[in-house]
Amino acid sequence: MYSFNVKTGSRFDLIKITDKIKKFVKDENITDGIITVFVPHTTAAVTINEGADPSVVEDIKKELDEIIPLHDNYSHMEGNSAAHIKSSLIGASENIMVENGSLVLGTWQAVFFCEFDGPRTRKVYVKVN
Amino acid sequence: MYSFNVKTGSRFDLIKITDKIKKFVKDENITDGIITVFVPHTTAAVTINEGADPSVVEDIKKELDEIIPLHDNYSHMEGNSAAHIKSSLIGASENIMVENGSLVLGTWQAVFFCEFDGPRTRKVYVKVN
Amino acid sequence: MYSFNVKTGSRFDLIKITDKIKKFVKDENITDGIITVFVPHTTAAVTINEGADPSVVEDIKKELDEIIPLHDNYSHMEGNSAAHIKSSLIGASENIMVENGSLVLGTWQAVFFCEFDGPRTRKVYVKVN
Repeated sequence: MYSFNVKTGSRFDLIKITDKIKKFVKDENITDGIITVFVPHTTAAVTINEGADPSVVEDIKKELDEIIPLHDNYSHMEGNSAAHIKSSLIGASENIMVENGSLVLGTWQAVFFCEFDGPRTRKVYVKVN
Repeated sequence: MYSFNVKTGSRFDLIKITDKIKKFVKDENITDGIITVFVPHTTAAVTINEGADPSVVEDIKKELDEIIPLHDNYSHMEGNSAAHIKSSLIGASENIMVENGSLVLGTWQAVFFCEFDGPRTRKVYVKVN
Repeated sequence: MYSFNVKTGSRFDLIKITDKIKKFVKDENITDGIITVFVPHTTAAVTINEGADPSVVEDIKKELDEIIPLHDNYSHMEGNSAAHIKSSLIGASENIMVENGSLVLGTWQAVFFCEFDGPRTRKVYVKVN
């Protein structure tokens, strides 16, 4: 298992981690397999989406905040229930294939760490099968 | 493949299954790998979220019922369309890593079976790679 | 890694791909393992849900369009932000177990390719561990 940190900059932040996962594949000399990316937090997640145009990320953030409002008569006293709900909707893990030593991603795909209750320093775990 | 039952208590119920997955890891002497947890139902799901404060689970349930209302002019005659939609949003599977014989979860993370159309007796499948 | 095409028929389309995954299991003589199904697109996804009654799929489409409206003051100029958001909510991958040469799915489960910005010809990747 390989682990790296992600420093998030705001309450709701999507940060590209594709290069860190590519580094793992290279450092470990993985030529073929399926990688699992896992986020060990309950107010964060991992997703794959467009990495080219930053307006896509802005729209994802805006719309998720509309669907799951920050304040909505939640009972959890810490005030971060919306972050927990987003975490379950987006999900704590992703699988990515490796072929011929390269991560298999579509042309527009990038891997994003999703911070829903930052800013904080977070962890990501990566492991291959 | 390992299988266990979950008895759910109400229409919408989140039930902690972390201990059952830990038991699988122990019984099978798994020291290292990636576990897949799979729910073979179309009106249920599996998620990872906070296991310490039960108010988080209450907020997840309340908010999901607001986002996907129980009645909303659905065409499916069985009356459980909201449960099917929640199932696809949360997802039928999760991946969890095992290192040194232990399930790798964050401090606050627990694994939950999500019942969206109970109460029923449900099945969960677990398998390691 | 195995790859196949899916031809989608409309902007928002859910297409059953269970048989194509079963064909992969048969062609590759897979008797035991965990299969990853991966969609290399940022405006599509993969989900597991009811395959018997097509009204379930209709309700999933209707409700997702209500939750994530097609037009909602998005900033991404291409006009397909709703598709990107749906893609992250449903997810780019699924895991399915294989036992005794058969895909392990519940009685009502089918695997669906989710097109959110069609019609197009799309790709699906399948790999076993």
